[in-house]
Amino acid sequence: MRILVIHGPNLNLLGSRETHIYGDMTLDEINRLIVERAAQQNATVKIVQHSSEGEIIDEIHRAKNWAEGIVINAGAYTHYSIAIRDALCAVSLPTVEVHISNTFNREKFRHKSVISPVVDGVIAGLGYRGYLYAIDYLVELNKIKAG
Amino acid sequence: MRILVIHGPNLNLLGSRETHIYGDMTLDEINRLIVERAAQQNATVKIVQHSSEGEIIDEIHRAKNWAEGIVINAGAYTHYSIAIRDALCAVSLPTVEVHISNTFNREKFRHKSVISPVVDGVIAGLGYRGYLYAIDYLVELNKIKAG
Amino acid sequence: MRILVIHGPNLNLLGSRETHIYGDMTLDEINRLIVERAAQQNATVKIVQHSSEGEIIDEIHRAKNWAEGIVINAGAYTHYSIAIRDALCAVSLPTVEVHISNTFNREKFRHKSVISPVVDGVIAGLGYRGYLYAIDYLVELNKIKAG
Amino acid sequence: MRILVIHGPNLNLLGSRETHIYGDMTLDEINRLIVERAAQQNATVKIVQHSSEGEIIDEIHRAKNWAEGIVINAGAYTHYSIAIRDALCAVSLPTVEVHISNTFNREKFRHKSVISPVVDGVIAGLGYRGYLYAIDYLVELNKIKAG
Amino acid sequence: MRILVIHGPNLNLLGSRETHIYGDMTLDEINRLIVERAAQQNATVKIVQHSSEGEIIDEIHRAKNWAEGIVINAGAYTHYSIAIRDALCAVSLPTVEVHISNTFNREKFRHKSVISPVVDGVIAGLGYRGYLYAIDYLVELNKIKAG
Amino acid sequence: MRILVIHGPNLNLLGSRETHIYGDMTLDEINRLIVERAAQQNATVKIVQHSSEGEIIDEIHRAKNWAEGIVINAGAYTHYSIAIRDALCAVSLPTVEVHISNTFNREKFRHKSVISPVVDGVIAGLGYRGYLYAIDYLVELNKIKAG
Amino acid sequence: MRILVIHGPNLNLLGSRETHIYGDMTLDEINRLIVERAAQQNATVKIVQHSSEGEIIDEIHRAKNWAEGIVINAGAYTHYSIAIRDALCAVSLPTVEVHISNTFNREKFRHKSVISPVVDGVIAGLGYRGYLYAIDYLVELNKIKAG
Amino acid sequence: MRILVIHGPNLNLLGSRETHIYGDMTLDEINRLIVERAAQQNATVKIVQHSSEGEIIDEIHRAKNWAEGIVINAGAYTHYSIAIRDALCAVSLPTVEVHISNTFNREKFRHKSVISPVVDGVIAGLGYRGYLYAIDYLVELNKIKAG
Amino acid sequence: MRILVIHGPNLNLLGSRETHIYGDMTLDEINRLIVERAAQQNATVKIVQHSSEGEIIDEIHRAKNWAEGIVINAGAYTHYSIAIRDALCAVSLPTVEVHISNTFNREKFRHKSVISPVVDGVIAGLGYRGYLYAIDYLVELNKIKAG
Amino acid sequence: MRILVIHGPNLNLLGSRETHIYGDMTLDEINRLIVERAAQQNATVKIVQHSSEGEIIDEIHRAKNWAEGIVINAGAYTHYSIAIRDALCAVSLPTVEVHISNTFNREKFRHKSVISPVVDGVIAGLGYRGYLYAIDYLVELNKIKAG
Amino acid sequence: MRILVIHGPNLNLLGSRETHIYGDMTLDEINRLIVERAAQQNATVKIVQHSSEGEIIDEIHRAKNWAEGIVINAGAYTHYSIAIRDALCAVSLPTVEVHISNTFNREKFRHKSVISPVVDGVIAGLGYRGYLYAIDYLVELNKIKAG
Amino acid sequence: MRILVIHGPNLNLLGSRETHIYGDMTLDEINRLIVERAAQQNATVKIVQHSSEGEIIDEIHRAKNWAEGIVINAGAYTHYSIAIRDALCAVSLPTVEVHISNTFNREKFRHKSVISPVVDGVIAGLGYRGYLYAIDYLVELNKIKAG
Repeated sequence: MRILVIHGPNLNLLGSRETHIYGDMTLDEINRLIVERAAQQNATVKIVQHSSEGEIIDEIHRAKNWAEGIVINAGAYTHYSIAIRDALCAVSLPTVEVHISNTFNREKFRHKSVISPVVDGVIAGLGYRGYLYAIDYLVELNKIKAG
Repeated sequence: MRILVIHGPNLNLLGSRETHIYGDMTLDEINRLIVERAAQQNATVKIVQHSSEGEIIDEIHRAKNWAEGIVINAGAYTHYSIAIRDALCAVSLPTVEVHISNTFNREKFRHKSVISPVVDGVIAGLGYRGYLYAIDYLVELNKIKAG
Repeated sequence: MRILVIHGPNLNLLGSRETHIYGDMTLDEINRLIVERAAQQNATVKIVQHSSEGEIIDEIHRAKNWAEGIVINAGAYTHYSIAIRDALCAVSLPTVEVHISNTFNREKFRHKSVISPVVDGVIAGLGYRGYLYAIDYLVELNKIKAG
Repeated sequence: MRILVIHGPNLNLLGSRETHIYGDMTLDEINRLIVERAAQQNATVKIVQHSSEGEIIDEIHRAKNWAEGIVINAGAYTHYSIAIRDALCAVSLPTVEVHISNTFNREKFRHKSVISPVVDGVIAGLGYRGYLYAIDYLVELNKIKAG
Repeated sequence: MRILVIHGPNLNLLGSRETHIYGDMTLDEINRLIVERAAQQNATVKIVQHSSEGEIIDEIHRAKNWAEGIVINAGAYTHYSIAIRDALCAVSLPTVEVHISNTFNREKFRHKSVISPVVDGVIAGLGYRGYLYAIDYLVELNKIKAG
Repeated sequence: MRILVIHGPNLNLLGSRETHIYGDMTLDEINRLIVERAAQQNATVKIVQHSSEGEIIDEIHRAKNWAEGIVINAGAYTHYSIAIRDALCAVSLPTVEVHISNTFNREKFRHKSVISPVVDGVIAGLGYRGYLYAIDYLVELNKIKAG
Repeated sequence: MRILVIHGPNLNLLGSRETHIYGDMTLDEINRLIVERAAQQNATVKIVQHSSEGEIIDEIHRAKNWAEGIVINAGAYTHYSIAIRDALCAVSLPTVEVHISNTFNREKFRHKSVISPVVDGVIAGLGYRGYLYAIDYLVELNKIKAG
Repeated sequence: MRILVIHGPNLNLLGSRETHIYGDMTLDEINRLIVERAAQQNATVKIVQHSSEGEIIDEIHRAKNWAEGIVINAGAYTHYSIAIRDALCAVSLPTVEVHISNTFNREKFRHKSVISPVVDGVIAGLGYRGYLYAIDYLVELNKIKAG
Repeated sequence: MRILVIHGPNLNLLGSRETHIYGDMTLDEINRLIVERAAQQNATVKIVQHSSEGEIIDEIHRAKNWAEGIVINAGAYTHYSIAIRDALCAVSLPTVEVHISNTFNREKFRHKSVISPVVDGVIAGLGYRGYLYAIDYLVELNKIKAG
Repeated sequence: MRILVIHGPNLNLLGSRETHIYGDMTLDEINRLIVERAAQQNATVKIVQHSSEGEIIDEIHRAKNWAEGIVINAGAYTHYSIAIRDALCAVSLPTVEVHISNTFNREKFRHKSVISPVVDGVIAGLGYRGYLYAIDYLVELNKIKAG
Repeated sequence: MRILVIHGPNLNLLGSRETHIYGDMTLDEINRLIVERAAQQNATVKIVQHSSEGEIIDEIHRAKNWAEGIVINAGAYTHYSIAIRDALCAVSLPTVEVHISNTFNREKFRHKSVISPVVDGVIAGLGYRGYLYAIDYLVELNKIKAG
Repeated sequence: MRILVIHGPNLNLLGSRETHIYGDMTLDEINRLIVERAAQQNATVKIVQHSSEGEIIDEIHRAKNWAEGIVINAGAYTHYSIAIRDALCAVSLPTVEVHISNTFNREKFRHKSVISPVVDGVIAGLGYRGYLYAIDYLVELNKIKAG
């Protein structure tokens, strides 16, 4: 199974940025855990991080031809990028939205995700583990389909 | 580790109720999977289902003395029961909120959870698996604390 | 034909409570008229009154196995009990929502029913007669189905 | 007893228009049932249908001198015609508002009736039968007054 | 092909009314261009202008039997006439909504059209030419159907 | 000077309709006072009353050619008839909006007039005298212009 | 008859301030016309102008003992001074609210008057003449009472 | 004098729950002070605490026959239980609403009480003393009535 | 102990103003009871009443140096005077907000107090007694501090 | 005449993406029709498609020096890119906004275009033909100017 | 050049009031720095501080005759005093609005200034230095005019 | 001291774009003045302008390692780019937000900055000088820290 993992803007600063909210693990450390988890389940991941909305859209488009699932933490774009939402709709792959922090106990504008209505499901507030459960879910789903 | 799993109103009808939304697994089947998952990780679960807001509150209160974590799918109470929210605050245990369906692509009133701001995190739309990941999370968290 | 008639909270005080709004007939008197109307049409009614949201939900669940229609005046729960709404959806029986007073010319919060979108229809403001027309409707509908 | 029955705009197309919402009975067939029901109870009905807000207002004004009750399905005017509302207030006759479909499970703008606050009561979603119950109600009310 | 072109209230004053917004062409001049354009494409147009909401509804109803498409500029009714919207739904013909001015850069209440959700498409701000493109569109669509 | 006085829907019932709000003078009596006041100032009035929005629009259009001022009490249309507002804009005559009752201490939906932004001024709550002051104002304004 | 005329903040700058909105007559000139009009009708006016909300309240309180009517243009306080509103309620005298400009075609925050619901009526947009009509009204009302 | 004191959900955890908000006194300690204060004034109190909305409603109903006043801290139900509000209306006893914390400087959803509009008065933020002042008030009121 | 008691605008008219809302006791009578109550508890009160927002602010500022508590009924300023709110914040003394009437069952704009979030607590609807309980509270609080 | 045609994000997937909404023509096919239509009218088009908001802005800036008109379908950016709106304002060229689908009968957030207020006009819901009419319009407009 | 500097309510307490928000410099110290800065640039300042809205209005009026610029920190009045806004409009002098704290990261009601739309510009959050930059700006602007 | 100055989208067109709003100075000219001002104070500036949200985010990230302050005019992104806001939070440098025009007297959507809550302060409406004052402020702040 092939999975695209997308980290949105500012996630590259994880570990140094507001650690009381996001924890002190760096993005590299998290990515290593994601790769490991995928490997354990015979899945391959491609992991990308972009500051640019347009590049995230392009990544999603490219996934259409090779990936069987998407894990996306769109960062701040979560709250307003209808363009990313439309890209996810357009490729129509099983997708899990992940947030490291519990976006629902932060500023009010973070309570609304324009992406949530077009994904399979959402995991928020469980730290880096959210990515791992998302991998688990996509792999299991894939097995059933392959079933 | 001891975990309380709470199912709110109408979840007892799972498997027969609107299966295009909630899937065709019954609550008993899901509960068996939860028990199994917990057992694999040396955790004990107490699973309850209540139609009554007051009884859910009482369960949460009782958890204070014996449980180390809570998994809660408050059903429709998710969207208005400030009393359940306050109960969760009052006992202050690690808690994961779970929804079987993706509440964010359903009616607008289901987009808002009054409980989310007081839990550790939220898993929605991943079907019965959401409960299992919640168990995983609480167990891992407990290990770190026990550290 | 078997019909469940549900009276929500505070309706037990009919006849003594705010009679300028609800009229001076007691709930017992109304129930007698309902039973009578049903009998005239060879229908059986089970009539319950509950203060508790949870008990109303449980009644609706139980109706699933024996009733062919529901008449519900959920009282104040009309305006916020998504849990009762979900219970009605879950059992999916022909249902008529009744209000004794015209809820639309009272306080603004009474103008909105969270139950109306999931019932067949609504009768409001026609006093106790609303229950009788609801019985009439369910019986006629049943005859058509019975064909 | 004399009753004015008013059908608002587009109701003349009943039976051919969006039958999944409004059923397949024509307005003529419904009117015949209304006349019949009234006759059974020794009531006379005058039934009108108008596309024009102004003409509906004029009908209501004329009712002042001869009718003892009004049944009104104002169609789309229900949602914005304060002028029709004012006309109903001005003549101050017992009035029942009827809707064939359950307006509360359709588009949001149909949830609000500007007429409801000035009528005795509302029947929605019970199909053509709503008109018949409205006739029943007005006749019974009249008997009590005549008492 | 037969097309009904409807001009709503106040459009009869075109050419003399607020010419900085609507241009200085009279309705007669525009109508001549519409007739010409239709003729070039072997289409027949019936053009009407009404101040009355009820008469516009009646025109739409009549179109049901002879027209294959509608071009409508409902003037101010655009913003609140749910009755005209319902009439368009009821006859269910290919329809293009036209506005001479760009309603989206005028008063806020002109930004909302209650008609747009039930038509094929909308042309706004392209002056009298909007009518001509609407004719073009309906004719082309008709050819495909006739195809 | 020539003035058009327009009474909107339901004003024909003045004197018999909700007299605690509108007073007990009939429309005829008010009209007589208006004619008298105009005569004292060498002005001519044409007074009309219409239930139909379309007819009010047509009256305003006709005024373009002969009147030098308009007094309008659009009744309930005040609160939603953008079509009447547009008609007033289109003819662009000095206009005074009059309301017999103080619309600002009644239902909230009466606080908003869609007509007020396009008239010279508004008089509300001063009973039938509002019409007389409106005549006074238009006459005085005309004298200044006539200079 | 004794009438208190209150001018609120910034009205002292009339004639020099934004003359395209308020005209070029000074407050002194307007006051002279008010005095004159009152005199013609055997009424006495006391005219005050205050920048301070508190002083306007005190003036209203003092009017309780000697005045039989109030004309108030509260200037900007119109839109938020509930304290002035309460003062008017407390003294409970016949009161007319006057605005020189048509507040309804200016900024949105000027469309709302917190004072209007507690006065007899409102005159807006008729320039300085609004004060004169207000005097006329109070005098006539007084005559009727004196009847 | 007989007074019913109602504590709503989660108040049983007082003293251990969020003590920075609610103080460190337990419910038992507070109840002892309430009993004492009542005794000093020859009043009898019945004190209850319930998690269930339905049971609170039942308590209020029962009070109808024996109590002469109610002190209610409905906890979280304060903010949405229209059913409790209706129960208070239905029994129509002198009632004081009490909150230990100042609900107005907490989360926005706590600023609104659906109960306040139907009670005599509200005391919030004065800690356990609020209950005592409520007792004082009801006793004094009763003396006047007994007068 | 020294306490400042502030009465806001229009409270000087108590006893003559809308007695169905505020009761028939004059401000002097209430003040006498306040003085008496304070004296019983060895507290001194300074009581002021002002129509002017600025003077209320100045009183609060002066309290900083001599008072140990404030009782404030800001009258209508309650609902919009952020300046008074800021003054209370700035001096940071124990403060109780009092309202004679139950502001929560009056006009909607009276439901919101901009002052409540910065005071210790609020007493509303208990008539003049609210002031006395406020004195009681401040004295008791002071004793605890004095320890 | 030289025209810039801009396609926003996700339009590159036309033909494969949600064909029930956007039709089954690919962007290449549409572009060929646009080029053809322009050629017929002696106009040159430059057609671009970008996922990136910044690149769309840069294209618009570059158009300033060579283009005489713009046709823009900004895709999802339509609903929030004030930056693109500002770019269009800054270059100030005749511009037509095009949408393939009828955005007004889709999700509510698609009803609002932040671009519409700064363009000449809008064509929505007429499929790929919207682009062609936009070309027609800009060419005709240019002829008049060249006139 | 002559500049009026206005400090609104509560600013007299600077240095002792909430120093974590406003810093620990007193108003006297800030005023000395303002005077100094002005002197360096050959400008004269008149500095006033008022608790009363009315007095601030009067100061602004007086400035009309002698000042060439205004620096205003209206304190809490910033958020609701339309009367001060109107005064600034009426005198129409170059004006800079200053806030010591960053009002945009405080309570939501402080995000809105009713004054900002009528001043040249706004400086917020730069502490006492905001006043100095405001002086700099007005002086430079004046030089250009003096040109 | 090292300062990053960021100009957002469309600012490259300054001097040619809507000069009645933004003035006629080009971005190059403004940048020259910024460099000059910084040099006078021994500060170094890096000045960038980007159309792309992603590139602005990247610039902010890079500033983390070398800059001691940021001046940002995010152009239209000001009003919706939560991603830029998050970038500013993540690097946590002293930051001043600058707008050339007074955004508060333009379109309503420009009144809200999502960036303001996370910067030190805001300068709007003072033209190019806003940048200079921002430099002044950051330099002075730096001296104090260096202090």
